Amino acid sequence: MSKKNIDKLTIFALGGVGEIGKNMYVVQYANDIVVVDCGLKFPEEDMLGIDIVIPDISYLTENRDKVRGIVITHGHEDHIGGLPYVLKNLNVPVYGTRLTMGLIEMKLKEANLLGETKRIVITADSELKLGCMTATFFKTNHSIPDSVGVCLETPEGNVVHTGDFKFDQTPVNEQYADLHQMAAIGRRGVIALLSDSTNAERPGYTGSERSVGAEIEDVFRKAKQRVVIATFASNIHRIQQVIDACESTRRKLTVIGRSMVNVVSIASELGYLHVPDGMLIEPEEVNKLAADRVAILSTGSQGEPMSALTRMARSTHRKMDILPGDTVIIAATPIPGNERYVGRTVDELMRIGAHVIYGPGSITGVHVSGHGSQEELKLMLNIMRPKYFIPIHGEYRMLRQHGMLAESVGIAREDIFIVDNGDTVEIQEGVARKGSKVPAGNVLIDGLGVGDVGNIVLRDRKLLSQDGILVVVVTLSKQDGTILSGPDIISRGFVYVRESEGLLEEANRIVTSTLHRLMNENVNEWASLKTHVKDALGRFLYEQTRRRPMILPIIMEV
Amino acid sequence: MSKKNIDKLTIFALGGVGEIGKNMYVVQYANDIVVVDCGLKFPEEDMLGIDIVIPDISYLTENRDKVRGIVITHGHEDHIGGLPYVLKNLNVPVYGTRLTMGLIEMKLKEANLLGETKRIVITADSELKLGCMTATFFKTNHSIPDSVGVCLETPEGNVVHTGDFKFDQTPVNEQYADLHQMAAIGRRGVIALLSDSTNAERPGYTGSERSVGAEIEDVFRKAKQRVVIATFASNIHRIQQVIDACESTRRKLTVIGRSMVNVVSIASELGYLHVPDGMLIEPEEVNKLAADRVAILSTGSQGEPMSALTRMARSTHRKMDILPGDTVIIAATPIPGNERYVGRTVDELMRIGAHVIYGPGSITGVHVSGHGSQEELKLMLNIMRPKYFIPIHGEYRMLRQHGMLAESVGIAREDIFIVDNGDTVEIQEGVARKGSKVPAGNVLIDGLGVGDVGNIVLRDRKLLSQDGILVVVVTLSKQDGTILSGPDIISRGFVYVRESEGLLEEANRIVTSTLHRLMNENVNEWASLKTHVKDALGRFLYEQTRRRPMILPIIMEV
Repeated sequence: MSKKNIDKLTIFALGGVGEIGKNMYVVQYANDIVVVDCGLKFPEEDMLGIDIVIPDISYLTENRDKVRGIVITHGHEDHIGGLPYVLKNLNVPVYGTRLTMGLIEMKLKEANLLGETKRIVITADSELKLGCMTATFFKTNHSIPDSVGVCLETPEGNVVHTGDFKFDQTPVNEQYADLHQMAAIGRRGVIALLSDSTNAERPGYTGSERSVGAEIEDVFRKAKQRVVIATFASNIHRIQQVIDACESTRRKLTVIGRSMVNVVSIASELGYLHVPDGMLIEPEEVNKLAADRVAILSTGSQGEPMSALTRMARSTHRKMDILPGDTVIIAATPIPGNERYVGRTVDELMRIGAHVIYGPGSITGVHVSGHGSQEELKLMLNIMRPKYFIPIHGEYRMLRQHGMLAESVGIAREDIFIVDNGDTVEIQEGVARKGSKVPAGNVLIDGLGVGDVGNIVLRDRKLLSQDGILVVVVTLSKQDGTILSGPDIISRGFVYVRESEGLLEEANRIVTSTLHRLMNENVNEWASLKTHVKDALGRFLYEQTRRRPMILPIIMEV
Repeated sequence: MSKKNIDKLTIFALGGVGEIGKNMYVVQYANDIVVVDCGLKFPEEDMLGIDIVIPDISYLTENRDKVRGIVITHGHEDHIGGLPYVLKNLNVPVYGTRLTMGLIEMKLKEANLLGETKRIVITADSELKLGCMTATFFKTNHSIPDSVGVCLETPEGNVVHTGDFKFDQTPVNEQYADLHQMAAIGRRGVIALLSDSTNAERPGYTGSERSVGAEIEDVFRKAKQRVVIATFASNIHRIQQVIDACESTRRKLTVIGRSMVNVVSIASELGYLHVPDGMLIEPEEVNKLAADRVAILSTGSQGEPMSALTRMARSTHRKMDILPGDTVIIAATPIPGNERYVGRTVDELMRIGAHVIYGPGSITGVHVSGHGSQEELKLMLNIMRPKYFIPIHGEYRMLRQHGMLAESVGIAREDIFIVDNGDTVEIQEGVARKGSKVPAGNVLIDGLGVGDVGNIVLRDRKLLSQDGILVVVVTLSKQDGTILSGPDIISRGFVYVRESEGLLEEANRIVTSTLHRLMNENVNEWASLKTHVKDALGRFLYEQTRRRPMILPIIMEV
């Protein structure tokens, strides 16, 4: 009866399920914890004023002596962007392939964490002892080179985390998916598979990056003037194809946008980008060359208001203009929520007179997704043949769709775990069940503040954004409570003051009479005075305007 | 040489070009003005706290004696929603078909404008004398019955305004596009065509509404429990098909969501919806029936946070729950900007355990657009064969694409006018040119306020929404300028106060020492005191937090 002392395998997400972004997965066996990925996500539209969002890692900091390290699958922000914040509170080794580590180091340098962080560069052939677990890797194909999936050998069996992947049969840059290595893992047996659900709603197969190259070259060839191409800075395969198109159409290339410049520099340095000598030119040199001898590689494929492309479209870029007749390629599909930004940028480019290639990659041919579609997800499931399946990387509906795909290839419904962040799946003696929850959530970062903006602050920002604020100040006498000065009403974001003088004067009379009435009734606790002023004024303003501004009564005493 | 006295035809948009929504077009000849449509649009994401947006009609109010009436093409919000506001300042006759007028009257009733508005119900065969112009109409097919296009016969020739249209060869409810009438107009000659550009970016043809009916019926037949279907309240064709599906699958139907209830009631009353006796039931009766005998027609196809579907998905609807195993059909494509809302609603429905049919109509089959695609737009151009072409109804890029389609069917580039709101096209003796601009723009409506929220108010709301506000109050002595009370600092939406006591105390010290320093230097104008306090505090807070809250210094004097 020694069974009750057998340790268990616990798997959970601290970020990345029920959402897109901030990926962070935890595999624990007894006293050993391995973390896979450490991403950020961009704020939802109701997180006003927030810059970025990272996972709540309190489970990890409470168990810091058990954490053997953070293994990173690839160098995208939603997989590495949380590191500068997390490593400040959890100084553990970070493992990643060469390009991934190059991108991580750029971040750690900016955050002054490079010196104190133990960084271990791995390859797809590495084998790591992480406590009682052994990590091996397999090459995957994704929209950034040097991506890997992870296989963690645990006493309960192999846990496989795919990272982000697709199965591109004609990849660029030799970044093929290592089917043989994956098959070998599948043969050895997989107790649990965690697999990328990003495109689980999309039927069929995702297109090949190589087809994009042909399309881009075609546009370059036909363009009579300059070509501006915007894509994700991290899509080094795409950037290589832009370079190749420049070479075959004898154009020089200039790179603009901070992240694009950084990535091109790191990737070339590390040998992931092959740039012919003399091809790259400075933005200042562009105007010295004939228009059909130049291409411009830029950030801003999501229409981000501060990006290089948007600034060029608005003619507010310091170094570069777009001219009538230039061709602009937006080689990306808008992320949900960004459609309006992209649309506006296209409008502005067209107003200048540019020829713009935009829209879904399926129509333009200049973009394909980096994530596998339904048939590829089934392929991964069939290769790994896991006992248990945990779809990851996706909103709830995508996880559910991925779950249905798993059922369709023969995984029993009860062996599929659709989890929220913090939900644990425990496996003991080969049997999985839902365990208790660990703390998980969003840590909001606003400026330098980490976690100092919570629900109350966000609720106030929301309120302020809708109808503005009225501040009511009055100075009372300490002796007898009479009004010495005020009430003064100052409003911001409520009404156009010059047009609403009457309204604000009337508001002032209401506050004054409310105060006088209360004093006559000998109400003199501040809290009560404030509540009455707030209520009377709020009621009046709502009747007059149907708006509910925040009302902030302030009493000074002299 | 009498030519210089010849009057001219002027055409312009007060809303609807360079944007989606708030359609309002003006055709003027000499002293006669005809307005086509009077719509609203929903606020852009940077119009914080705004409810709706209507056109600036100052040109019309300044020329009110010339305005012969407003002709409405169909009953959608973006064509009629501005009427309750516009008619308050411009009491002119309104012309519309029977259903269109029914929907308009519902709005005017709510706004207490029914009595004082002259309403003339027209048919597709009507002929109206509007000053020197004669208006005739032609039936179009669109996602609401009783849609028409307008032909205005002017001394310069026929001006055709298509309204919204598609060419559905197998329409529902006999709402066919009247090709013969259109051809007759085209034969007579068209000096200028204004045509719907909504789907100008979409290749091919738009699907037929009838195919949607077959698909919906199929889902109804297969569903083992209740079916909930959400679509646009105004899509009466779609609603008819839901009713038909209920009939053929022997389900009762209940209708929820205020706008859906209103439209179903008006459309049935006017004979545009044919509801079998006894089919409609009250929401309260749903639970008395077997689950496979019930369907629920609901608003909320855009995931709007306050809509019936969203409230059901969150289990906060007063009358209706969604149960595990129910089928939910979202028969609409998300409008750009709404994807996240729809996604969230789908997530919540799936968490309940509902089977959800969602996504692009091209995949689900339960939705088609009401607007013609590129081949249909070319068909309209070929039927009307206009001398001049003004693409309308669309963002700039859509207008441009429509312009390119017009070129492809043989209209000369110089005869195509891509205009902004307020740009005039003048035609005199058959020759068109760009004229001067008339005032045009957005009038923002926030609660009861029309136009009292402008750029300054919106800029303040934006600022407040990002980093909140700090109010700094101090009471000074009238005699000697010394501080009698304060400075007090109150913040909202800036930081979580309990976690930031130190920061706010330090901020207080900085304000105090700034004030003391200024007093020692005999600076005592309030404006100067305020500016110094604002600067010192702003600098400190930015250094500490990298945030820039609004700072509102208030000085009281006793």
